[in-house]
Amino acid sequence: MTFASLHRPGAPFVLPNAWDVGSARALVAAGFPAIGTTSLGITASSGLPDATRDGRDLTVDSTRQLLAAGLGCYLTCDIEDGFAEDPSMVADFVETLGVDGVNLEDATDGDLVSPTVHAAKIVAVKSRTPNVFLNARTDVFWLGSRDVNEAVRRARTYVDAGADGVFIPGTADLSTIESVVRAVNVPVNVLASPTATKRQLANVGVARISTGSLLYRVAITSAVAAATAVRDDAPTPPAVSYDDIQRLHTRPQGS
Amino acid sequence: MTFASLHRPGAPFVLPNAWDVGSARALVAAGFPAIGTTSLGITASSGLPDATRDGRDLTVDSTRQLLAAGLGCYLTCDIEDGFAEDPSMVADFVETLGVDGVNLEDATDGDLVSPTVHAAKIVAVKSRTPNVFLNARTDVFWLGSRDVNEAVRRARTYVDAGADGVFIPGTADLSTIESVVRAVNVPVNVLASPTATKRQLANVGVARISTGSLLYRVAITSAVAAATAVRDDAPTPPAVSYDDIQRLHTRPQGS
Repeated sequence: MTFASLHRPGAPFVLPNAWDVGSARALVAAGFPAIGTTSLGITASSGLPDATRDGRDLTVDSTRQLLAAGLGCYLTCDIEDGFAEDPSMVADFVETLGVDGVNLEDATDGDLVSPTVHAAKIVAVKSRTPNVFLNARTDVFWLGSRDVNEAVRRARTYVDAGADGVFIPGTADLSTIESVVRAVNVPVNVLASPTATKRQLANVGVARISTGSLLYRVAITSAVAAATAVRDDAPTPPAVSYDDIQRLHTRPQGS
Repeated sequence: MTFASLHRPGAPFVLPNAWDVGSARALVAAGFPAIGTTSLGITASSGLPDATRDGRDLTVDSTRQLLAAGLGCYLTCDIEDGFAEDPSMVADFVETLGVDGVNLEDATDGDLVSPTVHAAKIVAVKSRTPNVFLNARTDVFWLGSRDVNEAVRRARTYVDAGADGVFIPGTADLSTIESVVRAVNVPVNVLASPTATKRQLANVGVARISTGSLLYRVAITSAVAAATAVRDDAPTPPAVSYDDIQRLHTRPQGS
């Protein structure tokens, strides 16, 4: 099996996104064969905003920690726009990470970049590290547009440049998703959404469903809710035991 | 107001325990005037087991990050056994941290240490940093004993050595807690428990209720539950928005 082989259009796998070794190990223990990272979770954990160039060092550090942890699963990283405009610097960055896949997005600081610029990054990365699954993300919908033609045009450009998959966060509209799926011959990835079921996404041909920042946001929300419940003398949410967490991070004797 | 003044026997305040800047900022935003740290959460986030000497560097790093984040609340740190046997090394460590309070526990690697050894650490810390609220934790109950007399004897020894408070995790038995409260003239701290309400703990004179590792364990549990829900095509738990998280970590213009 390879990370690429997990992608079956019409039978999507769920890629949960971790923000540190602790969350990643817990997700692997729950049976997920691959883990993504969430740039929001990684930056927010350290008290920084998402989607700025400051995230580069945190991406490097967190990836190094995740790889060193020997997770026993595929790992794909959210590398935002590659943290550089120069395609060869982006290729250097991906090569340094040493992961199974990356998400590379076509927006910088909240603005879409030219698809030609983004395609050049894709060419550079695939030529340097052909075995890294490059998931080309277009932020057309994420940044608020509903221009399906623009998204399709960008998706095709990225596939022509060598992308192994296309990621279209920001829409849960099934006909929009289906239009992109039909326009490209690579797996299409969407974010999990409360308004589209997994079955519906499968039916329009999606191959990967990512949780994005959802798991991090759920974690923070429930932690604050538990603290507030203690303060208000109300029942607290369920939690795994101290020993369960310890076991996750204790290597077996002799290893 | 001082951190010490939050401690009112019979009217306990809730101290939520954070494991990184992201969790701490979210708890401060929910109105908590003081934040503790959880050594389980801090070590597990990085993939290490709790309660070993390896936690020292992580404690230093996470404290530095929490202080640099300018949380706008009191900060008290879980420093396990001080990560040293030599009292002056423990005092050095506390001085270096620069926090409002510390929890110092009388067990090393899962075994109780002599109360005399622990008292010597307390004397050293209070003499070096008199303004740091030293919460002396006895692990008698935490390690499985029900010996109230032993816990009381240790608590008194630690108070005589200069401890500002006494922490007795591992029991939710109200008469046990009351025995310790009556035996010492400093605030008593317990862990939040599903079997004792805040009102009951107030009635026996508790001054601080800590969440310990609960919030971290709730966070991980709910994150895994959300991932599993997406995989099983079930509804996901509630979560704050991406923008809410971003706002927590974005400094106002001009500051």
